[in-house]
Amino acid sequence: LKTKIFLRPEIQTLEKSYRTNLINGLSGFQSANLIGTINSVGITNLAIFNSVMHIGADPALMGFIARPSAELHTLKNIQETGAFTINAVHESIFKNAHQTSARYANGVSEFDVCGLGHEFSKNCTAPYVLESRIKIGLTLAEEYTLKSNGCHLVVGEIIEIILEESLLTIDGNVDHKKAKSITVLGLDEYHSTQVLGKLAYAKVSES
Amino acid sequence: LKTKIFLRPEIQTLEKSYRTNLINGLSGFQSANLIGTINSVGITNLAIFNSVMHIGADPALMGFIARPSAELHTLKNIQETGAFTINAVHESIFKNAHQTSARYANGVSEFDVCGLGHEFSKNCTAPYVLESRIKIGLTLAEEYTLKSNGCHLVVGEIIEIILEESLLTIDGNVDHKKAKSITVLGLDEYHSTQVLGKLAYAKVSES
Repeated sequence: LKTKIFLRPEIQTLEKSYRTNLINGLSGFQSANLIGTINSVGITNLAIFNSVMHIGADPALMGFIARPSAELHTLKNIQETGAFTINAVHESIFKNAHQTSARYANGVSEFDVCGLGHEFSKNCTAPYVLESRIKIGLTLAEEYTLKSNGCHLVVGEIIEIILEESLLTIDGNVDHKKAKSITVLGLDEYHSTQVLGKLAYAKVSES
Repeated sequence: LKTKIFLRPEIQTLEKSYRTNLINGLSGFQSANLIGTINSVGITNLAIFNSVMHIGADPALMGFIARPSAELHTLKNIQETGAFTINAVHESIFKNAHQTSARYANGVSEFDVCGLGHEFSKNCTAPYVLESRIKIGLTLAEEYTLKSNGCHLVVGEIIEIILEESLLTIDGNVDHKKAKSITVLGLDEYHSTQVLGKLAYAKVSES
């Protein structure tokens, strides 16, 4: 098997779109979630993110990475209102979800132009995605600006979880397979999944 | 369809393992990567992480979240040596990879007890996983400790990428499907994937 090695000087001089593809793909399969926000005058915003991550269970925290420019509306709205929602993307809506990454003009809500409905809960000021099966409402807890490239790590505390009851297993697991949640590779390749195995809590062998 | 809503007061009082499962599962499918490190006296460490993320392409940066206690060896070694490796997990090694999450004693290398080989490159002081098909060497760029729960965001700059040449597409994408890379749900459920579609760069419609 032929091996390819890229060293830093070569990485730095790669053609831009080649480098973007290469580096974006290195981490492997990522989650696909829609982040919903609203600004102080009531204009909603919706954007797909592949960087939503678990931060902690107690307190219940989730986070995501916002790029310096591209995801400005999402970040500005969160800074203005202190609220955002995370909505799982499933097979029936992944094309609509992807379309939210287009650069719509200020004042245009992706909810109106990408074929996704919104709904509000009395517990969270940010809009949820009507079609999503797993919806999480959060309040801004922390924000860090990375010195290396100006990206932002946004951390929110979970204030509300809304999901179909049938997606909850008896031990608290969320059945994303049943929900037909999808996973994304790089910026644009969407995948469904198949269970390989659920493994027991790993222990040091006694032998 | 019956809907279940969890509000913050209920989330805070959930039984601990139920809450851990629930909150860990909310973000959906995550990447599965092994992080390899070595300490200043030459003892190697290997641990599976589901939080490896893309941070930026120029400079080429990747990051991950390390929990306050559980992932102490990885973090300490990175602080000591400034180096770590990220190694993609594929179908043939996911059980070995999962086993690295057991709490081995100080001085025991997961490379020795989990059935995974190590290899070194002259460009990176941290060990790579021999069996992995996509290996990335990094130097520590930044580290942030989150005020909310003491977790650490570790950001590294990519200094080396080693992969099978056949996994690289002509436009720089990494073919994780061909590599049989896997994705993980929560802490313990591993999935293979199937392509649903690769979508074009989203544009604002002209209509």
